[in-house]
Amino acid sequence: MSRESWLPTLKTDTPEEGYELAVKLARKAVGMTQPDESIRKKLRPVYASNADSLTLASQVVAINFQTVAAANNYWKE
Amino acid sequence: MSRESWLPTLKTDTPEEGYELAVKLARKAVGMTQPDESIRKKLRPVYASNADSLTLASQVVAINFQTVAAANNYWKE
Amino acid sequence: MSRESWLPTLKTDTPEEGYELAVKLARKAVGMTQPDESIRKKLRPVYASNADSLTLASQVVAINFQTVAAANNYWKE
Amino acid sequence: MSRESWLPTLKTDTPEEGYELAVKLARKAVGMTQPDESIRKKLRPVYASNADSLTLASQVVAINFQTVAAANNYWKE
Amino acid sequence: MSRESWLPTLKTDTPEEGYELAVKLARKAVGMTQPDESIRKKLRPVYASNADSLTLASQVVAINFQTVAAANNYWKE
Amino acid sequence: MSRESWLPTLKTDTPEEGYELAVKLARKAVGMTQPDESIRKKLRPVYASNADSLTLASQVVAINFQTVAAANNYWKE
Repeated sequence: MSRESWLPTLKTDTPEEGYELAVKLARKAVGMTQPDESIRKKLRPVYASNADSLTLASQVVAINFQTVAAANNYWKE
Repeated sequence: MSRESWLPTLKTDTPEEGYELAVKLARKAVGMTQPDESIRKKLRPVYASNADSLTLASQVVAINFQTVAAANNYWKE
Repeated sequence: MSRESWLPTLKTDTPEEGYELAVKLARKAVGMTQPDESIRKKLRPVYASNADSLTLASQVVAINFQTVAAANNYWKE
Repeated sequence: MSRESWLPTLKTDTPEEGYELAVKLARKAVGMTQPDESIRKKLRPVYASNADSLTLASQVVAINFQTVAAANNYWKE
Repeated sequence: MSRESWLPTLKTDTPEEGYELAVKLARKAVGMTQPDESIRKKLRPVYASNADSLTLASQVVAINFQTVAAANNYWKE
Repeated sequence: MSRESWLPTLKTDTPEEGYELAVKLARKAVGMTQPDESIRKKLRPVYASNADSLTLASQVVAINFQTVAAANNYWKE
């Protein structure tokens, strides 16, 4: 019996859902590098109060959104 | 009754509007990471007075603009 | 009566003009984040005398040039 | 007699496995630059407790995931 | 009478020349941001002795090389 | 009589060799910016013991690997 996949597909119905998937992809790598949620939780307020950290996070989302958008043919039709 | 989407489409009429959408995409991830607007407002003047922060912000816009431009077939026709 | 667009098209006649457009795109995001020109002017000498800042600026131009070059089909014909 | 390749193909069955391959690609370069595992092990806890380091790591995964996703035609069919 | 273009084309005969063009593209943006050559010359030894600065420079070349390689259809034929 | 090219082609037989080429491309730009090997050798241990430096290096490899993988049509056939 297999666990459910956290990433069964790159297809989404809308650009907005695609953007949310990009955020999920960005966070997943963080979770894989630092699996301890209590540590991640401690990092968050520091990180979320630093402008450059926020910009850097936005950059990772942007890169993942490129992938998701391409996978959805930019939701063109 | 559904709320309106903040990102119904990646299509824009002009490159300039596409660039504005890229800026919006860049800011959205910041808002999702730091939802507290009062904190974001405090960060802005510091951040907007640091050259490297501004360059970094421009970089995120550039990455998002790649996506939007591709979605619009570079406004070729 | 509409103002003129600062970005009416991504098409340029030559690669060199395309590169200049990429520089313009990079600077535009800076101006949108920090609209106060007097502050931007103060930042410039500091920034332009720091090697990593210059490299970072070059990176943003490079990303934008990817977009402009693709929009012009790399000036292939 | 040849050793087995650590990267025989970029094809994966699912997006999730593709993401894992992207993580593997990101770590491989680290291992090639710092082959001494004992040093890498010492670096890990410091690194995994710094928010920006985690975001930077996520960014490298995102770039590699672009490659893997393209190689798999975004798992479209 | 027009000056000669520093970037008449993105086409090169070989991948190696394409790589050199990518380096040229990376340096051009630096020169446009800091036109004073005497300042650039002072920055160089500091910068060239810092590992992260060198890696960052390599990154900009890599991004430009993507563009040049695509413009040359990866020198496939 | 011409010297041999360090980059005669972007084609490789396997993804693994493509990855090695990406590493070579990343290092080449470093060597072109800092041609003095004795300085590069001094930088290496410092750099290879810093987690963020390693991640940054991995990022440059990832960008170059995108280029090499595309040049090889992702080794699809």
